[in-house]
Amino acid sequence: MSQFWSDIVHKLTPYVPGEQPKLVNLTKLNTNENPYPPSPKVLEALKAEAAETLRLYPDPNSDKLKNAIAEYHGLNANQVFVGNGSDEVLAHVFQALLKHDKPLLFPEITYSFYPVYCGLYQIDFEAIALNAQFEIELSGYLKPNGGIIFPNPNAPTGIPLALDNVEKLLKANTQSVVVVDEAYVDFGTESAVSLINQYPNLVVVHTLSKSRSLAGLRVGYALGHCALIEALIRVKDSFNSYPIDRFAEAGAIAAMQDVDYFEDTKQKVIKTREHLIIEMQKLDFDVLPSGANFIFAKHRNRLGVELSQALRERGIIVRQFKSPVRISDYLRITVGTDAQSKTLIDSLSELLK
Amino acid sequence: MSQFWSDIVHKLTPYVPGEQPKLVNLTKLNTNENPYPPSPKVLEALKAEAAETLRLYPDPNSDKLKNAIAEYHGLNANQVFVGNGSDEVLAHVFQALLKHDKPLLFPEITYSFYPVYCGLYQIDFEAIALNAQFEIELSGYLKPNGGIIFPNPNAPTGIPLALDNVEKLLKANTQSVVVVDEAYVDFGTESAVSLINQYPNLVVVHTLSKSRSLAGLRVGYALGHCALIEALIRVKDSFNSYPIDRFAEAGAIAAMQDVDYFEDTKQKVIKTREHLIIEMQKLDFDVLPSGANFIFAKHRNRLGVELSQALRERGIIVRQFKSPVRISDYLRITVGTDAQSKTLIDSLSELLK
Repeated sequence: MSQFWSDIVHKLTPYVPGEQPKLVNLTKLNTNENPYPPSPKVLEALKAEAAETLRLYPDPNSDKLKNAIAEYHGLNANQVFVGNGSDEVLAHVFQALLKHDKPLLFPEITYSFYPVYCGLYQIDFEAIALNAQFEIELSGYLKPNGGIIFPNPNAPTGIPLALDNVEKLLKANTQSVVVVDEAYVDFGTESAVSLINQYPNLVVVHTLSKSRSLAGLRVGYALGHCALIEALIRVKDSFNSYPIDRFAEAGAIAAMQDVDYFEDTKQKVIKTREHLIIEMQKLDFDVLPSGANFIFAKHRNRLGVELSQALRERGIIVRQFKSPVRISDYLRITVGTDAQSKTLIDSLSELLK
Repeated sequence: MSQFWSDIVHKLTPYVPGEQPKLVNLTKLNTNENPYPPSPKVLEALKAEAAETLRLYPDPNSDKLKNAIAEYHGLNANQVFVGNGSDEVLAHVFQALLKHDKPLLFPEITYSFYPVYCGLYQIDFEAIALNAQFEIELSGYLKPNGGIIFPNPNAPTGIPLALDNVEKLLKANTQSVVVVDEAYVDFGTESAVSLINQYPNLVVVHTLSKSRSLAGLRVGYALGHCALIEALIRVKDSFNSYPIDRFAEAGAIAAMQDVDYFEDTKQKVIKTREHLIIEMQKLDFDVLPSGANFIFAKHRNRLGVELSQALRERGIIVRQFKSPVRISDYLRITVGTDAQSKTLIDSLSELLK
């Protein structure tokens, strides 16, 4: 607290990211990183950037990267906005498209950064309850609003919403922006990108942090009608002209273009997840349906906080949320390699004996 | 324009950065990049980052980088804030520390991003006139205010304000934050970093884009009292937890540590500048005093727009500002290598014949 702070600073409750422990040799299953390295083609492109040209600014518009993303998704480059991780992209989306007189709607249990952005930009919001199965119920969103945002699959549950339902919502809600935050979509959830050319109020947000193994590079993007993208560009150019450095642009282009590697690692993660779910169920965990690279699981007899602590003592880090109470007995476990799954299952078996 | 835009978007007048032409073989003297490559140690550190670890998030707090910056300046790490270029750092400074009931004060002719930030965060400001020699006059700032910000050396003039004068201002202005934006300070202007431990309302902003030849990497930082830094961290953690990617952190650490290389290239630029000024004066240019890696120069008989265009036709890009009228006949010319200076002087000699 200081007299020198702007008023808003006193009111902020900043987001707390999952722990990034500095120890090595941990089985780190807490922040949904991909267990596989980035494509060798990405690493090659990145090595080439460590050169004299770093003295020069990057392209402020990241045109080549926008082209690569547009090509991958079958869209035009003016339907693409890029940023320093999907968190920065989301921040600009909140400021540029979701601040209106009526409240923004998002699920009661969801990505916990959403209410933080609302605090930063002073956006009114209403949190809409999930149903008894932790699913998003469309009926809750059919009311006057200044915008709608939800992750698909939702966080931290991992539960996907079928594309049919996303489209039903878009048909019913035409007067405000609908943002589908698809950070985890590649792991088996249907993407709403196919609807972009039909709905001028749809924004889809993706990241290269998860399915493209580039959490360390910080690149995310938004797709939507060019008028929505223009709003994001106007805000970005009033904030920071050059958010994408030369490494981020070169690495992200190579990642978008190496489709075979992407498909291959994605399938490996999905296969490991399906096996992990079966093993967890054998240990008396209830596991929610997952369209993500993580599972959300609750033991029938043991407290979440206790299991999380016991795993940590064995060098395995998972994420457990203290609030809301409804999810506090769930563990959010990143899908790692088969070997990491085995380490986890072995530890849990021992713990639960 | 779209019904889906937040109100603020309609009101923005985004910053327009200097052109980043995609042609090669230009003599690019328009965006104040360093003509020398980054230190070989920086390139080595960057190559090592193109590795499997990119699948993992970077340290959200960039602790190692903060330590390296603190060590270089003889400060503590809690007096350091880092961001994705000094433009991002400045954006957070405006939002976190400069929005108050009274107007923010900055020079009438200055870094043109300042009024843009004010538009984005809806901060009232008052532009204070420079004197007849284009210098900052302290007397203009001795009035009630919600904060003061100026570049030192000022942009786009390059004129330095002596440290004595900066301290006079700090002694007189104790009730609001004073931000000294030292993007170009290393090229011969006295830094206010030495005053940080005495003035709890002082923030000094630096970038690695200019004197450390890393415009392509996007790293800047702010230094100040830990209570001011805390405000910046609170805003950053409400915006984007991980703005500094793994390359940016590793490269910036190596750059802060290779002091010999930094001193050497800096001296080369200063030497070239002094020679360039003499040559320009011989061609009938009035050149303002420069403590930066650029000069601001006006020909006695020829229009700025005309000279700028004629140079462009010869493959030399400099920056010329259409407004305010008072500076429209000046050319802002980045100090390049001796060879680039010669190319420029030869072209100008021919043009002015």
